Parts: sequence; C-alpha cells; structure tokens
Amino acid sequence: MANVSCGFDVLGFCLDPIGDEMIIRKTAEKGIRITKIEGQDLPLEAHNNVAGVAGLALLEAHPSAFGFEIEIIKGIKAGSGIGSSAASSAGAVFGINELLGRPFTRGELIQFAMKGEELASGTPHADNVAPVLLGGFTLVRCSKEPDVIGLPSPSELYATVLHPKIELKTSDARAVLKKNIMLEKAIQQWGNLAALVSGLYTNDYDLIGRSLVDVVIEPHRSALIPGFQELKKAATDSGALGSGISGSGPSMFALSRGEAAAIRVGESMRQAFLKYNIEFELHISKINPKGIHIISSK
Amino acid sequence: MANVSCGFDVLGFCLDPIGDEMIIRKTAEKGIRITKIEGQDLPLEAHNNVAGVAGLALLEAHPSAFGFEIEIIKGIKAGSGIGSSAASSAGAVFGINELLGRPFTRGELIQFAMKGEELASGTPHADNVAPVLLGGFTLVRCSKEPDVIGLPSPSELYATVLHPKIELKTSDARAVLKKNIMLEKAIQQWGNLAALVSGLYTNDYDLIGRSLVDVVIEPHRSALIPGFQELKKAATDSGALGSGISGSGPSMFALSRGEAAAIRVGESMRQAFLKYNIEFELHISKINPKGIHIISSK
Repeated sequence: MANVSCGFDVLGFCLDPIGDEMIIRKTAEKGIRITKIEGQDLPLEAHNNVAGVAGLALLEAHPSAFGFEIEIIKGIKAGSGIGSSAASSAGAVFGINELLGRPFTRGELIQFAMKGEELASGTPHADNVAPVLLGGFTLVRCSKEPDVIGLPSPSELYATVLHPKIELKTSDARAVLKKNIMLEKAIQQWGNLAALVSGLYTNDYDLIGRSLVDVVIEPHRSALIPGFQELKKAATDSGALGSGISGSGPSMFALSRGEAAAIRVGESMRQAFLKYNIEFELHISKINPKGIHIISSK
Repeated sequence: MANVSCGFDVLGFCLDPIGDEMIIRKTAEKGIRITKIEGQDLPLEAHNNVAGVAGLALLEAHPSAFGFEIEIIKGIKAGSGIGSSAASSAGAVFGINELLGRPFTRGELIQFAMKGEELASGTPHADNVAPVLLGGFTLVRCSKEPDVIGLPSPSELYATVLHPKIELKTSDARAVLKKNIMLEKAIQQWGNLAALVSGLYTNDYDLIGRSLVDVVIEPHRSALIPGFQELKKAATDSGALGSGISGSGPSMFALSRGEAAAIRVGESMRQAFLKYNIEFELHISKINPKGIHIISSK
C-alpha cells in the first residue's frame, strides 16, 4: 500500500493477508514463460507482463543456464490501489532469486521489480515494490538511483482497507494532479511526513494519527473516489488514527491501534459505503513486518 | 539553526557555544523593562523588542505580582541566519519562567517565544525557538497550533557555521521564494526530509549526508549568498556529510561526523571564503542536546 496520506510517492507499507500467490519453477528452456494467470485477464507474454519484465531484468543482470515458468494467482486486482502490479513484479524476482540461490539481497531486488512497475505505469517507481520485498514501512528517498530505507512498524498498528470493485487507472489518478503546488502546502506535507516517520520510530500512535494528513494529493484525487468524505468520516468517528487514499485509489485505508479498533473502523466504513451500491471488499491487516515469503517449496 | 537544508520551515537544531546571554531580575514594578542591550543596537521598549514581547505574552497567560528587568548581551547578530531573534525570545520566556517557579514546561514556552518571532519577521514561527528551548533537533509539524516534536541528535554530529558579517533580512530571503513549486521537487524534498529524520533515529551518518539536499529553497536563495557554491564545494571536498544555508542566510552550515572533521571542514570553508573580502566568523559546535540553560543564579 503506497503513499500513506502525507507520504505521496515515497512511503508504503506491506499488507498481510492480501496478495498474489505465485508458483515458480525452474525449466531447462532459458528465459521466462508465464504459463497461467488465475483471477484476472492479463497478458501471458513475458515481455508484456509485469512479472515477466521484472524477472527478465533480473536475468539480464544475472544470466542463468536455465529458465523459469511462472503461474500467477492474482489476489489483488489491477487498478485497486493496493499495488497489484507490485505484488506480481516483486513476487517474480523474489521467487527467481530464491531458485538461483539468492544472488541478490531483498533490497537489491527492488531495482528489478521496478521494471515491472515501469511497464504498468510508465515510470519505474519503488514505493509499492519496496514494502513487498522488505516488509513493514519503507521510504523511497530517491527512486532514480533507488535509495530505500526500512522504517519500523509499531506492533499494534493495523490497517483497514476498503476496496470498491471499480477500476481507477493510476494514469487517470495521475492526470488530476497539478504539476505545481503551493509552497505553503508542501511545507505542511513534509512537516506531517517527517512527524509520521518520527511516530513510527517512537511508537507514538497519537502522533501517527495527527500526521496522517494529506493537503496536496487528497484534495484532487478524492473527487475520483465514491464515498470518499463519508469513508473518512466513518473512520475518524469510529476511532481510526487516520485515513486516506490507498495508493492512487479507489481503495481507502485507515490505520488503527489494535485489531479490535481496526475491525470496528472497518464495520463503520462498510456501513458508510453500503448506500453506494458498489461491490467492495474489506480487509483488516496487521502491518506485515517481513514482506513477501515462501508458502511452500519442493 | 533552522531549516537544515531539506527541512525548510519545520526543522531546526540547537548550537552550543553560540548564543545570547541574558540577565533577568525580579522587580517590584510589574511588567517588563529592557534595561540594557550589549553588542547590537536594538529597541529597548518592551513592546518593540522580541524578548519583551515574548515575556509579555507569558505574563499575559500567567499574571505575576512582580515584574522583570532584562539585560541582553547579544552573541548572535540580527540577520545572520543563526536565529538571533529566537535566542532573545526564548531566553526571555525561559528566564522569566524560572523566576516564576516554572509554571510552564519548556514545550509550553514555545507559544510565548513565537510572539517574539512574530515581531521580528511578521509571522509567529517555531522552527528557531523550539530547538533553543528543547535542545537537539526539533520538528515543527504544525506551527498554527504548535505541535513540536523533539528528535534525537546522533552524538558524533557536529555543525560548522560560517557567518559572513553582512546582513540578509529574512523578509528579503523570503521575497526570492516562489509561491508555487513543482510537485516533483516537493516529492524529492519530503523524501529527503523523511530520510533525514530516519537517519537521526538510527545514527546513520551516511543517510543523514545523502538526505541533506534542498531542491526547493536553495536554488533561489543561494544567489543571495556570496560564495555559496565555493562554500558548498569546500565542505563536500573536505568530508562534510552535507551543507546548506543556515536559516535564511547569509550564514552557511555544514554537518560532519566528529569534531575533527567539523574543524577540517571549517578550515576548508574559511580558505574558500577568504577571497570575498567579507569579514566572517567561523563556529564549530556540537549539537546542543539540552538547549538553553542557566549560567548562574543568585
């Protein structure tokens, strides 16, 4: 989940039960073949699939005598704002790296996974793939020559994510943003982001809550999200620390202290969203401190 | 010292040997009288002096049966970029608070000291008075209803400050700034500031160095500072972690790991600045973790 309110384009965190599952096998034939995609209609050609492109970038840096076959079971829908392309991009490079005997660290895999993001959105960005690979909260100080910093995740921090099943393309969500912003707003934003980072280090849940304010992006993107104001109000009224747009939307997230609070916030958001007659999913997730992992290996 | 490169208007830290000294006495007569100012020509009328205005703001919130007499020995010149008005504003409220038996915490004193800043610059801002009162690095998340966070100061962090003895008014330094900035630059800036905060928590000197980049303010203000490029180059070449404009200038600061490095950086900056034929002072300072303190009390 990227952006996290005041952390537009630099901050992200890893969700726990939400994600893609992938089966990756070594093959005698070199290169990468996507053999199957479940749960969504996505291109199978490796050069046209984010997982394929990310995997090929890794293999270019570390040529292998054998190839790889990938099956993808999509758990995150494209255009949801929960990092669908990042899940597949990061999954591919993580799995291939394991089968190669780990020539790269998790941090080094970011640069390859970013190639998948480039295919998906036009620019190679790390704010979604970094939390998948490193877990917890991550900060992308610089994406040009990737400089990614792992931040601590207070243990009682839970995310509530409401995902309306309508697609909002990242490119459309980008299009509503202005190229220029007021310096005054930028100062508020970086004050809040710096305070949020401080709150993560000191387990200061109140400070985390006070800092979850986005005066730059939210005012523009909120218009694209059905029920935005009601969802924010529902989250606040039911005790969330703060809330905002998940990624580029249309999903919304709230952060709460403790699982019980996150469930209560979810119930409140659910009630607020029912009147929109839009199908939706609701997720309650601890911040996943470890990131992507192996479910089973044979 | 406010701003600290990427932390424009929100970040600051407290210098050690540099500052004003003040003598504050209880008087039978109510109110505040500034009896003497050494080292600079500043108004003696309490309502027209930053120390007076700050002290009066405190007394309005906490009326006292007696009054106060203040002598100020200025160690910081107005218009230096090293927080001259903040030193006197914070000094007055700190001293008066002591003589009243500490009705306010150091954090609570910020709101009163900000009134002095308002007199000096037109807007009540906390980014200079907060480090004086709290010590170390401070972050002003919000200055409207002041929300100030104390950040840790890595113990080996030293500042080198070169202060050219020319005056640059904060209002003039403000005038060169544009009201709008590019979103892309803002993102770089808040990525760097968030990383700098992370570096302060983790004693990651390299990260602190990589994060001391200001792509928003420096490009405009650097033109007002004689020798800016040479001073930056001198600092970098001699091993500084990073450097930038101190406050709104004309002083320049560099941060280094260890006192020896800070002295070497200072020597290098001195050499670079000699050709400008502008009188200057050079300060080497540990980050002062405690802030303002009592020299002696009778």
